[in-house]
Amino acid sequence: MEPIDQNKKTGRLYGLGVGPGDPELMTLKAVRLIGECDTIAIPVSGRETNVAFEIARGAVPEIEAKELLEVFMPMIREESKLRESHDKAAAAVIAELEKGKDIVFLTLGDPSIYSTYIYIHNRVAAQGYETEIIPGIPSFCAVSARLNEGLTEASEALHVIPASYGGIEEALALKGTRVLMKSGKSIGKVKAILSKMEPPPEVKMVERCGMEGERVFRRLEDLDEEAGYFSILVVKEEQKRR
Amino acid sequence: MEPIDQNKKTGRLYGLGVGPGDPELMTLKAVRLIGECDTIAIPVSGRETNVAFEIARGAVPEIEAKELLEVFMPMIREESKLRESHDKAAAAVIAELEKGKDIVFLTLGDPSIYSTYIYIHNRVAAQGYETEIIPGIPSFCAVSARLNEGLTEASEALHVIPASYGGIEEALALKGTRVLMKSGKSIGKVKAILSKMEPPPEVKMVERCGMEGERVFRRLEDLDEEAGYFSILVVKEEQKRR
Repeated sequence: MEPIDQNKKTGRLYGLGVGPGDPELMTLKAVRLIGECDTIAIPVSGRETNVAFEIARGAVPEIEAKELLEVFMPMIREESKLRESHDKAAAAVIAELEKGKDIVFLTLGDPSIYSTYIYIHNRVAAQGYETEIIPGIPSFCAVSARLNEGLTEASEALHVIPASYGGIEEALALKGTRVLMKSGKSIGKVKAILSKMEPPPEVKMVERCGMEGERVFRRLEDLDEEAGYFSILVVKEEQKRR
Repeated sequence: MEPIDQNKKTGRLYGLGVGPGDPELMTLKAVRLIGECDTIAIPVSGRETNVAFEIARGAVPEIEAKELLEVFMPMIREESKLRESHDKAAAAVIAELEKGKDIVFLTLGDPSIYSTYIYIHNRVAAQGYETEIIPGIPSFCAVSARLNEGLTEASEALHVIPASYGGIEEALALKGTRVLMKSGKSIGKVKAILSKMEPPPEVKMVERCGMEGERVFRRLEDLDEEAGYFSILVVKEEQKRR
Protein backbone atom coordinates (compact mmCIF):
# COMPACT_ATOMS: atom_id res chain seq x y z
CA MET A 1 0.00 0.00 0.00
CA GLU A 2 1.23 3.47 -0.86
CA PRO A 3 1.82 5.71 2.15
CA ILE A 4 -0.83 8.41 2.36
CA ASP A 5 0.55 11.78 1.39
CA GLN A 6 -0.17 14.12 4.26
CA ASN A 7 0.79 17.20 2.30
CA LYS A 8 -2.03 19.42 1.23
CA LYS A 9 -2.82 18.67 -2.42
CA THR A 10 -2.73 21.80 -4.56
CA GLY A 11 -4.83 22.24 -7.68
CA ARG A 12 -3.76 22.21 -11.31
CA LEU A 13 -3.99 25.16 -13.70
CA TYR A 14 -5.22 24.58 -17.26
CA GLY A 15 -4.79 27.37 -19.80
CA LEU A 16 -7.51 26.37 -22.17
CA GLY A 17 -8.15 27.66 -25.69
CA VAL A 18 -11.83 27.85 -26.59
CA GLY A 19 -11.02 28.55 -30.24
CA PRO A 20 -12.00 31.50 -32.39
CA GLY A 21 -15.75 31.88 -31.88
CA ASP A 22 -17.91 28.96 -32.97
CA PRO A 23 -18.48 26.75 -29.89
CA GLU A 24 -18.39 23.70 -32.17
CA LEU A 25 -14.72 24.44 -32.84
CA MET A 26 -13.89 23.61 -29.24
CA THR A 27 -11.93 20.40 -28.74
CA LEU A 28 -13.17 17.30 -26.95
CA LYS A 29 -10.45 17.86 -24.38
CA ALA A 30 -11.56 21.43 -23.69
CA VAL A 31 -15.14 20.29 -23.17
CA ARG A 32 -14.07 17.49 -20.84
CA LEU A 33 -11.82 19.68 -18.71
CA ILE A 34 -14.41 22.41 -18.33
CA GLY A 35 -16.79 19.74 -17.07
CA GLU A 36 -14.26 18.29 -14.64
CA CYS A 37 -12.65 21.40 -13.14
CA ASP A 38 -13.67 23.17 -9.94
CA THR A 39 -13.19 26.77 -11.00
CA ILE A 40 -13.37 28.74 -14.24
CA ALA A 41 -11.03 31.72 -14.46
CA ILE A 42 -11.62 34.56 -16.88
CA PRO A 43 -9.63 37.73 -17.40
CA VAL A 44 -11.59 40.84 -16.55
CA SER A 45 -11.16 44.17 -18.28
CA GLY A 46 -9.55 42.44 -21.21
CA ARG A 47 -11.64 42.67 -24.32
CA GLU A 48 -11.69 38.90 -24.58
CA THR A 49 -13.44 38.53 -21.25
CA ASN A 50 -16.95 37.53 -21.91
CA VAL A 51 -16.24 36.38 -25.44
CA ALA A 52 -14.31 33.32 -24.25
CA PHE A 53 -16.91 32.53 -21.58
CA GLU A 54 -19.76 32.85 -24.07
CA ILE A 55 -18.04 30.50 -26.50
CA ALA A 56 -17.49 27.92 -23.77
CA ARG A 57 -21.09 28.23 -22.60
CA GLY A 58 -22.23 27.51 -26.15
CA ALA A 59 -20.67 24.05 -25.97
CA VAL A 60 -20.82 23.38 -22.22
CA PRO A 61 -23.93 24.96 -20.65
CA GLU A 62 -22.98 23.42 -17.27
CA ILE A 63 -20.20 25.99 -17.06
CA GLU A 64 -22.79 28.30 -15.50
CA ALA A 65 -22.76 26.24 -12.32
CA LYS A 66 -18.98 26.44 -11.86
CA GLU A 67 -17.26 28.70 -9.41
CA LEU A 68 -16.02 31.78 -11.27
CA LEU A 69 -12.69 33.45 -10.61
CA GLU A 70 -12.47 36.85 -12.23
CA VAL A 71 -8.84 37.79 -12.74
CA PHE A 72 -8.21 41.48 -13.09
CA MET A 73 -5.96 42.13 -16.10
CA PRO A 74 -6.15 45.75 -17.14
CA MET A 75 -4.96 46.87 -20.58
CA ILE A 76 -1.92 48.93 -19.69
CA ARG A 77 1.23 49.67 -21.65
CA GLU A 78 3.83 50.59 -19.08
CA GLU A 79 6.07 47.57 -18.62
CA SER A 80 6.55 47.79 -14.85
CA LYS A 81 2.85 48.31 -14.12
CA LEU A 82 1.96 45.48 -16.47
CA ARG A 83 4.36 43.17 -14.66
CA GLU A 84 2.89 44.19 -11.34
CA SER A 85 -0.61 43.50 -12.60
CA HIS A 86 0.42 40.06 -13.90
CA ASP A 87 2.05 39.26 -10.55
CA LYS A 88 -1.18 40.12 -8.77
CA ALA A 89 -3.27 38.08 -11.20
CA ALA A 90 -0.95 35.08 -10.74
CA ALA A 91 -1.23 35.43 -6.96
CA ALA A 92 -5.03 35.33 -7.21
CA VAL A 93 -4.83 32.13 -9.25
CA ILE A 94 -2.30 30.59 -6.84
CA ALA A 95 -4.56 31.34 -3.86
CA GLU A 96 -7.22 29.13 -5.47
CA LEU A 97 -4.74 26.39 -6.39
CA GLU A 98 -3.65 26.37 -2.74
CA LYS A 99 -7.23 25.53 -1.77
CA GLY A 100 -6.84 22.42 -3.91
CA LYS A 101 -9.02 23.72 -6.75
CA ASP A 102 -8.38 22.71 -10.34
CA ILE A 103 -8.73 25.83 -12.44
CA VAL A 104 -9.53 26.19 -16.14
CA PHE A 105 -8.43 29.61 -17.37
CA LEU A 106 -10.34 30.41 -20.56
CA THR A 107 -8.56 32.03 -23.48
CA LEU A 108 -9.79 32.95 -26.94
CA GLY A 109 -8.15 31.06 -29.81
CA ASP A 110 -5.00 29.20 -28.75
CA PRO A 111 -3.27 29.97 -25.43
CA SER A 112 0.22 29.93 -26.94
CA ILE A 113 -0.47 32.63 -29.54
CA TYR A 114 -0.75 36.19 -28.17
CA SER A 115 -2.84 35.28 -25.15
CA THR A 116 -2.66 37.35 -22.00
CA TYR A 117 -3.06 34.09 -20.11
CA ILE A 118 0.53 33.09 -20.83
CA TYR A 119 1.87 35.72 -18.42
CA ILE A 120 -0.08 34.07 -15.61
CA HIS A 121 0.93 30.64 -16.80
CA ASN A 122 4.64 31.41 -16.73
CA ARG A 123 4.45 32.84 -13.22
CA VAL A 124 2.38 30.00 -11.79
CA ALA A 125 4.59 27.36 -13.45
CA ALA A 126 7.75 29.09 -12.22
CA GLN A 127 6.46 28.74 -8.66
CA GLY A 128 6.24 25.00 -9.06
CA TYR A 129 2.50 24.49 -9.51
CA GLU A 130 1.19 22.00 -12.04
CA THR A 131 0.18 23.75 -15.24
CA GLU A 132 -1.02 22.56 -18.62
CA ILE A 133 -1.82 24.30 -21.89
CA ILE A 134 -4.82 22.97 -23.84
CA PRO A 135 -4.53 24.04 -27.48
CA GLY A 136 -7.41 25.77 -29.28
CA ILE A 137 -8.05 26.57 -32.94
CA PRO A 138 -6.22 29.83 -33.71
CA SER A 139 -8.33 32.56 -35.26
CA PHE A 140 -6.33 32.61 -38.48
CA CYS A 141 -7.18 28.96 -39.19
CA ALA A 142 -10.87 29.78 -38.82
CA VAL A 143 -10.45 32.83 -41.07
CA SER A 144 -8.87 30.71 -43.77
CA ALA A 145 -11.69 28.17 -43.48
CA ARG A 146 -14.22 31.02 -43.70
CA LEU A 147 -12.54 32.25 -46.87
CA ASN A 148 -12.74 28.63 -48.09
CA GLU A 149 -9.09 28.53 -49.13
CA GLY A 150 -5.68 27.50 -47.80
CA LEU A 151 -3.22 29.80 -46.04
CA THR A 152 0.03 28.24 -47.22
CA GLU A 153 1.03 25.65 -49.75
CA ALA A 154 4.16 23.59 -50.32
CA SER A 155 7.25 25.65 -49.55
CA GLU A 156 5.59 28.97 -48.68
CA ALA A 157 6.22 30.60 -45.31
CA LEU A 158 3.45 31.83 -43.01
CA HIS A 159 4.07 35.04 -41.08
CA VAL A 160 1.72 35.97 -38.25
CA ILE A 161 2.10 39.59 -37.29
CA PRO A 162 0.32 41.43 -34.47
CA ALA A 163 -0.80 44.98 -35.23
CA SER A 164 1.49 46.20 -32.43
CA TYR A 165 4.57 44.83 -34.24
CA GLY A 166 7.28 47.43 -34.67
CA GLY A 167 8.22 47.12 -38.35
CA ILE A 168 4.85 46.51 -39.92
CA GLU A 169 5.96 47.73 -43.36
CA GLU A 170 8.91 45.32 -43.54
CA ALA A 171 6.77 42.49 -42.17
CA LEU A 172 4.18 43.07 -44.88
CA ALA A 173 6.94 42.83 -47.48
CA LEU A 174 7.98 39.32 -46.40
CA LYS A 175 7.57 36.51 -48.90
CA GLY A 176 4.79 34.02 -48.36
CA THR A 177 1.45 34.49 -46.62
CA ARG A 178 1.18 37.28 -44.10
CA VAL A 179 -1.56 37.24 -41.44
CA LEU A 180 -2.26 40.42 -39.52
CA MET A 181 -3.83 39.84 -36.12
CA LYS A 182 -5.89 42.22 -34.03
CA SER A 183 -5.68 44.74 -36.83
CA GLY A 184 -8.45 47.02 -35.59
CA LYS A 185 -7.15 50.55 -35.49
CA SER A 186 -4.29 49.99 -37.91
CA ILE A 187 -6.36 48.94 -40.93
CA GLY A 188 -6.10 52.34 -42.59
CA LYS A 189 -2.33 52.38 -42.28
CA VAL A 190 -1.98 48.79 -43.47
CA LYS A 191 -4.27 49.45 -46.42
CA ALA A 192 -2.09 52.36 -47.51
CA ILE A 193 1.07 50.22 -47.36
CA LEU A 194 -0.52 47.32 -49.24
CA SER A 195 -1.96 49.50 -51.99
CA LYS A 196 1.56 50.61 -52.96
CA MET A 197 2.96 47.08 -53.25
CA GLU A 198 4.07 45.66 -56.60
CA PRO A 199 2.90 43.19 -57.76
CA PRO A 200 -0.34 43.84 -55.89
CA PRO A 201 -0.86 41.11 -53.28
CA GLU A 202 -4.14 39.32 -52.78
CA VAL A 203 -5.74 40.84 -49.66
CA LYS A 204 -8.75 39.54 -47.74
CA MET A 205 -10.11 40.26 -44.29
CA VAL A 206 -12.59 38.68 -41.89
CA GLU A 207 -14.02 40.65 -38.99
CA ARG A 208 -15.43 38.75 -35.99
CA CYS A 209 -14.97 35.36 -37.66
CA GLY A 210 -17.57 32.88 -36.41
CA MET A 211 -19.13 35.47 -34.10
CA GLU A 212 -22.20 37.64 -34.35
CA GLY A 213 -21.63 40.50 -36.77
CA GLU A 214 -19.09 38.61 -38.90
CA ARG A 215 -18.06 40.42 -42.09
CA VAL A 216 -15.91 39.18 -44.97
CA PHE A 217 -13.93 41.47 -47.28
CA ARG A 218 -12.41 39.98 -50.41
CA ARG A 219 -10.65 42.96 -51.99
CA LEU A 220 -8.16 45.47 -50.63
CA GLU A 221 -10.28 48.42 -51.73
CA ASP A 222 -13.28 47.10 -49.80
CA LEU A 223 -11.59 46.83 -46.37
CA ASP A 224 -13.52 48.87 -43.83
CA GLU A 225 -11.06 51.04 -41.93
CA GLU A 226 -13.58 51.23 -39.12
CA ALA A 227 -13.63 47.46 -38.62
CA GLY A 228 -13.13 46.31 -35.03
CA TYR A 229 -10.46 44.65 -32.90
CA PHE A 230 -11.33 41.09 -33.98
CA SER A 231 -10.32 41.65 -37.60
CA ILE A 232 -7.78 39.46 -39.35
CA LEU A 233 -6.14 40.27 -42.65
CA VAL A 234 -4.68 37.66 -44.96
CA VAL A 235 -2.13 38.92 -47.47
CA LYS A 236 -0.98 36.48 -50.12
CA GLU A 237 1.36 36.52 -53.04
CA GLU A 238 -0.30 36.28 -56.38
CA GLN A 239 -1.74 32.81 -56.64
CA LYS A 240 -0.19 30.13 -58.76
CA ARG A 241 -2.49 27.19 -59.34
CA ARG A 242 -0.82 23.92 -58.43
CA MET B 1 -45.01 24.84 -51.06
CA GLU B 2 -41.54 24.89 -52.57
CA PRO B 3 -41.28 23.23 -55.97
CA ILE B 4 -39.41 19.97 -55.76
CA ASP B 5 -35.95 20.25 -57.28
CA GLN B 6 -35.69 17.55 -59.92
CA ASN B 7 -31.96 18.03 -60.39
CA LYS B 8 -29.73 15.36 -59.04
CA LYS B 9 -28.38 16.52 -55.68
CA THR B 10 -24.60 16.39 -55.51
CA GLY B 11 -22.67 15.82 -52.30
CA ARG B 12 -20.59 18.24 -50.27
CA LEU B 13 -16.86 18.00 -49.67
CA TYR B 14 -15.47 18.71 -46.21
CA GLY B 15 -11.73 19.14 -45.80
CA LEU B 16 -11.46 18.25 -42.16
CA GLY B 17 -8.51 18.75 -39.81
CA VAL B 18 -8.15 15.99 -37.22
CA GLY B 19 -5.50 17.96 -35.34
CA PRO B 20 -1.94 16.98 -34.51
CA GLY B 21 -2.20 13.52 -32.97
CA ASP B 22 -4.19 13.25 -29.76
CA PRO B 23 -7.78 12.26 -30.72
CA GLU B 24 -9.04 14.40 -27.83
CA LEU B 25 -7.77 17.48 -29.69
CA MET B 26 -10.38 16.95 -32.39
CA THR B 27 -13.16 19.52 -32.47
CA LEU B 28 -16.81 18.85 -31.76
CA LYS B 29 -17.54 19.82 -35.36
CA ALA B 30 -15.04 17.31 -36.74
CA VAL B 31 -16.57 14.53 -34.66
CA ARG B 32 -20.11 15.45 -35.73
CA LEU B 33 -19.28 15.62 -39.43
CA ILE B 34 -17.42 12.31 -39.45
CA GLY B 35 -20.53 10.77 -37.90
CA GLU B 36 -22.86 12.39 -40.43
CA CYS B 37 -20.98 11.95 -43.71
CA ASP B 38 -21.35 9.11 -46.22
CA THR B 39 -17.74 8.67 -47.23
CA ILE B 40 -14.33 9.16 -45.63
CA ALA B 41 -11.56 10.12 -48.04
CA ILE B 42 -7.90 9.64 -47.19
CA PRO B 43 -4.83 10.33 -49.26
CA VAL B 44 -2.87 7.23 -50.10
CA SER B 45 0.90 7.12 -50.49
CA GLY B 46 1.22 10.33 -48.55
CA ARG B 47 2.92 9.84 -45.23
CA GLU B 48 -0.10 11.29 -43.45
CA THR B 49 -2.35 8.53 -44.74
CA ASN B 50 -3.09 6.26 -41.90
CA VAL B 51 -2.05 8.74 -39.25
CA ALA B 52 -5.10 10.96 -39.87
CA PHE B 53 -7.42 7.98 -40.02
CA GLU B 54 -6.02 6.53 -36.80
CA ILE B 55 -6.48 9.84 -34.99
CA ALA B 56 -10.09 10.08 -36.18
CA ARG B 57 -10.77 6.49 -35.16
CA GLY B 58 -9.51 7.29 -31.67
CA ALA B 59 -12.37 9.77 -31.19
CA VAL B 60 -15.00 8.30 -33.52
CA PRO B 61 -14.80 4.48 -33.62
CA GLU B 62 -17.87 4.41 -35.92
CA ILE B 63 -15.61 5.69 -38.69
CA GLU B 64 -14.76 2.03 -39.37
CA ALA B 65 -18.23 1.46 -40.78
CA LYS B 66 -18.00 4.33 -43.28
CA GLU B 67 -17.33 3.90 -46.95
CA LEU B 68 -13.66 4.61 -47.60
CA LEU B 69 -12.37 6.50 -50.62
CA GLU B 70 -8.64 6.12 -51.03
CA VAL B 71 -7.29 9.00 -53.05
CA PHE B 72 -3.98 8.33 -54.73
CA MET B 73 -1.62 11.24 -54.10
CA PRO B 74 1.96 10.22 -54.79
CA MET B 75 4.87 12.26 -53.44
CA ILE B 76 6.36 13.65 -56.64
CA ARG B 77 8.27 16.83 -57.27
CA GLU B 78 7.84 17.57 -60.96
CA GLU B 79 5.26 20.34 -61.21
CA SER B 80 3.41 19.06 -64.28
CA LYS B 81 3.15 15.49 -62.99
CA LEU B 82 2.02 16.76 -59.62
CA ARG B 83 -0.72 18.83 -61.24
CA GLU B 84 -1.82 15.84 -63.25
CA SER B 85 -1.98 13.72 -60.12
CA HIS B 86 -4.02 16.36 -58.31
CA ASP B 87 -6.40 16.59 -61.26
CA LYS B 88 -6.94 12.84 -61.12
CA ALA B 89 -7.46 12.88 -57.36
CA ALA B 90 -10.02 15.69 -57.70
CA ALA B 91 -11.81 13.73 -60.40
CA ALA B 92 -12.07 10.73 -58.09
CA VAL B 93 -13.60 12.92 -55.38
CA ILE B 94 -15.99 14.55 -57.83
CA ALA B 95 -17.18 11.15 -59.05
CA GLU B 96 -18.34 10.41 -55.49
CA LEU B 97 -19.92 13.86 -55.05
CA GLU B 98 -21.86 13.22 -58.25
CA LYS B 99 -23.38 10.15 -56.61
CA GLY B 100 -24.76 12.48 -53.97
CA LYS B 101 -22.29 11.42 -51.29
CA ASP B 102 -21.08 13.83 -48.63
CA ILE B 103 -17.36 13.32 -48.26
CA VAL B 104 -15.11 14.08 -45.30
CA PHE B 105 -11.50 14.29 -46.48
CA LEU B 106 -9.22 13.76 -43.48
CA THR B 107 -6.12 15.89 -43.03
CA LEU B 108 -3.55 15.99 -40.26
CA GLY B 109 -3.40 19.25 -38.31
CA ASP B 110 -5.28 22.09 -40.02
CA PRO B 111 -6.33 21.84 -43.69
CA SER B 112 -5.27 25.40 -44.50
CA ILE B 113 -1.64 24.95 -43.41
CA TYR B 114 0.54 22.84 -45.73
CA SER B 115 -2.05 20.16 -46.38
CA THR B 116 -2.04 18.22 -49.62
CA TYR B 117 -5.83 18.29 -49.36
CA ILE B 118 -5.97 21.92 -50.41
CA TYR B 119 -5.02 21.07 -54.01
CA ILE B 120 -8.08 18.84 -54.24
CA HIS B 121 -10.21 21.42 -52.48
CA ASN B 122 -9.31 24.20 -54.91
CA ARG B 123 -10.06 22.03 -57.94
CA VAL B 124 -13.38 20.74 -56.60
CA ALA B 125 -14.49 24.24 -55.52
CA ALA B 126 -13.48 25.71 -58.89
CA GLN B 127 -15.82 23.27 -60.59
CA GLY B 128 -18.73 24.59 -58.59
CA TYR B 129 -19.20 21.87 -55.98
CA GLU B 130 -19.99 22.75 -52.37
CA THR B 131 -16.84 22.65 -50.27
CA GLU B 132 -16.07 23.50 -46.67
CA ILE B 133 -12.89 23.60 -44.61
CA ILE B 134 -13.14 22.41 -40.99
CA PRO B 135 -10.22 23.81 -38.98
CA GLY B 136 -8.04 21.57 -36.85
CA ILE B 137 -5.40 22.28 -34.21
CA PRO B 138 -2.12 22.95 -36.04
CA SER B 139 0.83 20.86 -34.93
CA PHE B 140 2.81 23.88 -33.74
CA CYS B 141 0.12 24.79 -31.20
CA ALA B 142 0.29 21.27 -29.77
CA VAL B 143 4.08 21.48 -29.70
CA SER B 144 3.95 24.70 -27.73
CA ALA B 145 1.46 23.15 -25.31
CA ARG B 146 3.72 20.11 -24.96
CA LEU B 147 6.63 22.42 -24.12
CA ASN B 148 4.30 24.07 -21.59
CA GLU B 149 5.06 27.59 -22.82
CA GLY B 150 3.75 30.23 -25.23
CA LEU B 151 4.87 30.69 -28.82
CA THR B 152 4.50 34.45 -29.12
CA GLU B 153 3.81 37.30 -26.74
CA ALA B 154 2.68 40.87 -27.19
CA SER B 155 4.21 42.36 -30.33
CA GLU B 156 6.36 39.42 -31.45
CA ALA B 157 5.91 37.93 -34.90
CA LEU B 158 5.42 34.21 -35.54
CA HIS B 159 7.08 32.74 -38.63
CA VAL B 160 6.11 29.27 -39.75
CA ILE B 161 8.61 27.85 -42.22
CA PRO B 162 8.44 24.51 -44.01
CA ALA B 163 11.71 22.61 -44.38
CA SER B 164 11.38 22.90 -48.16
CA TYR B 165 11.47 26.72 -47.99
CA GLY B 166 14.07 28.22 -50.28
CA GLY B 167 15.93 30.65 -48.02
CA ILE B 168 16.02 28.74 -44.77
CA GLU B 169 19.02 30.69 -43.43
CA GLU B 170 17.34 34.09 -43.92
CA ALA B 171 14.09 32.74 -42.51
CA LEU B 172 15.86 31.55 -39.37
CA ALA B 173 17.32 35.03 -38.94
CA LEU B 174 13.88 36.71 -38.79
CA LYS B 175 12.88 38.44 -35.58
CA GLY B 176 10.30 36.79 -33.36
CA THR B 177 9.48 33.12 -32.97
CA ARG B 178 10.38 30.79 -35.83
CA VAL B 179 8.66 27.44 -36.20
CA LEU B 180 10.18 24.88 -38.56
CA MET B 181 7.69 22.35 -39.87
CA LYS B 182 8.37 18.87 -41.25
CA SER B 183 12.02 19.34 -40.42
CA GLY B 184 13.01 15.69 -40.73
CA LYS B 185 15.98 15.45 -43.05
CA SER B 186 17.08 19.08 -42.65
CA ILE B 187 17.71 19.01 -38.90
CA GLY B 188 21.47 18.70 -39.29
CA LYS B 189 21.63 21.69 -41.62
CA VAL B 190 19.34 23.78 -39.42
CA LYS B 191 21.34 22.89 -36.32
CA ALA B 192 24.53 24.11 -37.98
CA ILE B 193 22.91 27.44 -38.92
CA LEU B 194 21.42 27.94 -35.45
CA SER B 195 24.63 27.14 -33.61
CA LYS B 196 26.35 30.08 -35.34
CA MET B 197 23.69 32.64 -34.40
CA GLU B 198 24.45 35.50 -32.00
CA PRO B 199 22.96 35.92 -29.46
CA PRO B 200 22.19 32.19 -29.32
CA PRO B 201 18.46 31.64 -29.73
CA GLU B 202 16.42 29.34 -27.53
CA VAL B 203 15.83 26.14 -29.52
CA LYS B 204 13.47 23.29 -28.70
CA MET B 205 12.06 20.43 -30.73
CA VAL B 206 9.23 17.93 -30.43
CA GLU B 207 9.15 14.79 -32.55
CA ARG B 208 5.81 13.02 -33.11
CA CYS B 209 3.94 15.36 -30.72
CA GLY B 210 0.98 13.56 -29.14
CA MET B 211 1.74 10.36 -31.05
CA GLU B 212 3.44 7.12 -30.09
CA GLY B 213 7.20 7.59 -29.87
CA GLU B 214 7.01 11.28 -28.94
CA ARG B 215 10.36 12.84 -27.99
CA VAL B 216 11.06 16.29 -26.58
CA PHE B 217 14.40 18.10 -26.99
CA ARG B 218 15.02 21.22 -24.95
CA ARG B 219 18.48 22.29 -26.06
CA LEU B 220 20.04 22.86 -29.46
CA GLU B 221 22.93 20.51 -28.76
CA ASP B 222 20.51 17.68 -27.94
CA LEU B 223 18.54 17.72 -31.21
CA ASP B 224 18.69 14.32 -32.84
CA GLU B 225 19.64 14.76 -36.49
CA GLU B 226 18.05 11.40 -37.19
CA ALA B 227 14.62 12.51 -35.91
CA GLY B 228 11.74 11.83 -38.28
CA TYR B 229 9.38 13.73 -40.57
CA PHE B 230 6.97 14.75 -37.81
CA SER B 231 9.51 16.93 -36.00
CA ILE B 232 8.86 20.56 -35.22
CA LEU B 233 11.49 23.05 -34.09
CA VAL B 234 10.70 26.18 -32.12
CA VAL B 235 13.34 28.90 -32.27
CA LYS B 236 12.85 31.85 -29.95
CA GLU B 237 14.68 35.01 -29.18
CA GLU B 238 16.22 35.15 -25.75
CA GLN B 239 13.34 35.30 -23.31
CA LYS B 240 12.39 38.45 -21.51
CA ARG B 241 10.08 37.85 -18.58
CA ARG B 242 7.00 40.03 -18.78
